[in-house]
Amino acid sequence: MRKPLIAVTFGDAAGIGPELIAKLAGDPKAQEAATIVLVGDAWVWTEGQRIAGVAPQARPISAFTEARGQDGLFFLATETVQKSDVTPGAVTAGAGRGARAALTLCLEAAKRGEIDALCFAPLNKQAMKKGGMAFEDELHFFADYLGVTGYFCEFNTLGTLWTSRISSHIPLADIPKYVTGDRIKAAAELTWRTLRKAGFENPRVAVAALNPHGGDGGTCGREEIDIIEPAARELNAAGIPIQGPYPADTIFLKARDGALDAIVTMYHDQGQVAVKLLGFERGVTVQGGLPVIITTPAHGTAFDIAGTGKANPRAMTEAFLLAAKMASSR
Amino acid sequence: MRKPLIAVTFGDAAGIGPELIAKLAGDPKAQEAATIVLVGDAWVWTEGQRIAGVAPQARPISAFTEARGQDGLFFLATETVQKSDVTPGAVTAGAGRGARAALTLCLEAAKRGEIDALCFAPLNKQAMKKGGMAFEDELHFFADYLGVTGYFCEFNTLGTLWTSRISSHIPLADIPKYVTGDRIKAAAELTWRTLRKAGFENPRVAVAALNPHGGDGGTCGREEIDIIEPAARELNAAGIPIQGPYPADTIFLKARDGALDAIVTMYHDQGQVAVKLLGFERGVTVQGGLPVIITTPAHGTAFDIAGTGKANPRAMTEAFLLAAKMASSR
Repeated sequence: MRKPLIAVTFGDAAGIGPELIAKLAGDPKAQEAATIVLVGDAWVWTEGQRIAGVAPQARPISAFTEARGQDGLFFLATETVQKSDVTPGAVTAGAGRGARAALTLCLEAAKRGEIDALCFAPLNKQAMKKGGMAFEDELHFFADYLGVTGYFCEFNTLGTLWTSRISSHIPLADIPKYVTGDRIKAAAELTWRTLRKAGFENPRVAVAALNPHGGDGGTCGREEIDIIEPAARELNAAGIPIQGPYPADTIFLKARDGALDAIVTMYHDQGQVAVKLLGFERGVTVQGGLPVIITTPAHGTAFDIAGTGKANPRAMTEAFLLAAKMASSR
Repeated sequence: MRKPLIAVTFGDAAGIGPELIAKLAGDPKAQEAATIVLVGDAWVWTEGQRIAGVAPQARPISAFTEARGQDGLFFLATETVQKSDVTPGAVTAGAGRGARAALTLCLEAAKRGEIDALCFAPLNKQAMKKGGMAFEDELHFFADYLGVTGYFCEFNTLGTLWTSRISSHIPLADIPKYVTGDRIKAAAELTWRTLRKAGFENPRVAVAALNPHGGDGGTCGREEIDIIEPAARELNAAGIPIQGPYPADTIFLKARDGALDAIVTMYHDQGQVAVKLLGFERGVTVQGGLPVIITTPAHGTAFDIAGTGKANPRAMTEAFLLAAKMASSR
């Protein structure tokens, strides 16, 4: 099997992204797992190395194809944003525009089959929007750019435990409207298929219940009986094994104890409370349902520590290694 | 300060309660912390010792007053249920009736000031109802029996972290109806006062947000701005320091890292997902807002392992020690 080629971008230049990428690029585990092509402005790469206090040798190239089949670290320089347009540790339109331009370049390369995956350092949603992104988040930008028409959603993973959700950044009062058989089936099937791509031969996927104690047999909410359980049953009949619904307050204990690989949650905090407690510092986000493998750390730009050299590269490294693993098992 | 006198009941005789109480009674830490009066049927106490494989010496008494001011372990025998009316590991009306009769005896003694606290082994709600309890749970039974008219609610605690909630066993769709200024103020104030009673000099209490990311400045739900934050502000103005609202997915990280003593949650799973992950095996429930100190382990009757001797007494011991601590700091 040939080594996958992974494009890596610096994310928001005002955040901890450049520092994280410098630390990642100097990590022998990363170079072992894939051919790395850094994509971004030369001054950002220099700044990242300075802040991180490392200087990995990256061979300059002018096209992704030059790196294909070779071992090592490459740098594909772009000019997306002036240093004077970025204020370290702050939201700027320039950094948002620059981050998106580098991502766009990689998406184009992915369409041409020149890269096997994309891994990006943290973005700032507000900067992206100021810089012209017309979508609620980067996932919707990717999906639109790549012409995705099917179901897509973000996965949060800690390596051994994956979570997806059928609703995300919506008010709690609106959650019940999203609890439909179609959404549950689409999210659960996508979860199962994504885990297969990530190397799980027989993914153990369960859906969470919506109500306390899973509705207590219908005495405390009926969505489990009327919607969630029938959706799981339909998927099982179609050859996609999905367990549950299981009560939310014990499903994560099952997962922590190794009995589940993935949980399809009904709403944002149901999964996020657990995932952050189980391993905030190593969480990875996978953009699910796209034709391109895209990963990023689950944490943000950490503007408060940008430029200090203190950023923990753990999740960035995990995001990269997961992209490499998924690209290798294709 | 005199040693507190704590009444202890066996809970549901068909579950792990009798075994747990035998293990607790033989624990020197427990006898050190308080005078212990076991209350229940002699055959249940014998069974508990047999299953646990221990035989702590309990001096028989016929009234709580005989134990007052003395060190050690006492047994106040009652006749609440026949052995033939209980099936180990199963829900029976007899065990539910018996458990409630022992609790009632203790509540009466508490009214007369003969005990300082009550600690009970796990009950089974279904058995309690079959046995004639006309309330949704034991907390409502206690509150009614004791004539409580103010706000009361269950606390879950892991010792250093306490959680209360403004809504409990209701469908998720009904949660927004419970998010009122009055409920939040009542729950937060009760939380603060209960922690003071539990020995926290300056309890650091925070309220959780309802919506993802705390409503993202009103773009993702307005309850934080319109209801929760004003309620916290009102309490602060009244001399009860309450922090928040903080987003649900990071508030528990703050607590885990020692920055908070208690969290007032908006709904069942918001708190229970976190509490169970943080320490299911040592969780304690405190019945808050009653004139009597009442604690119990957060876990249930564990019918699947009843009679095996394998039950872990950790949470039972924690529940007892917390009752002793609260009674001592009165």
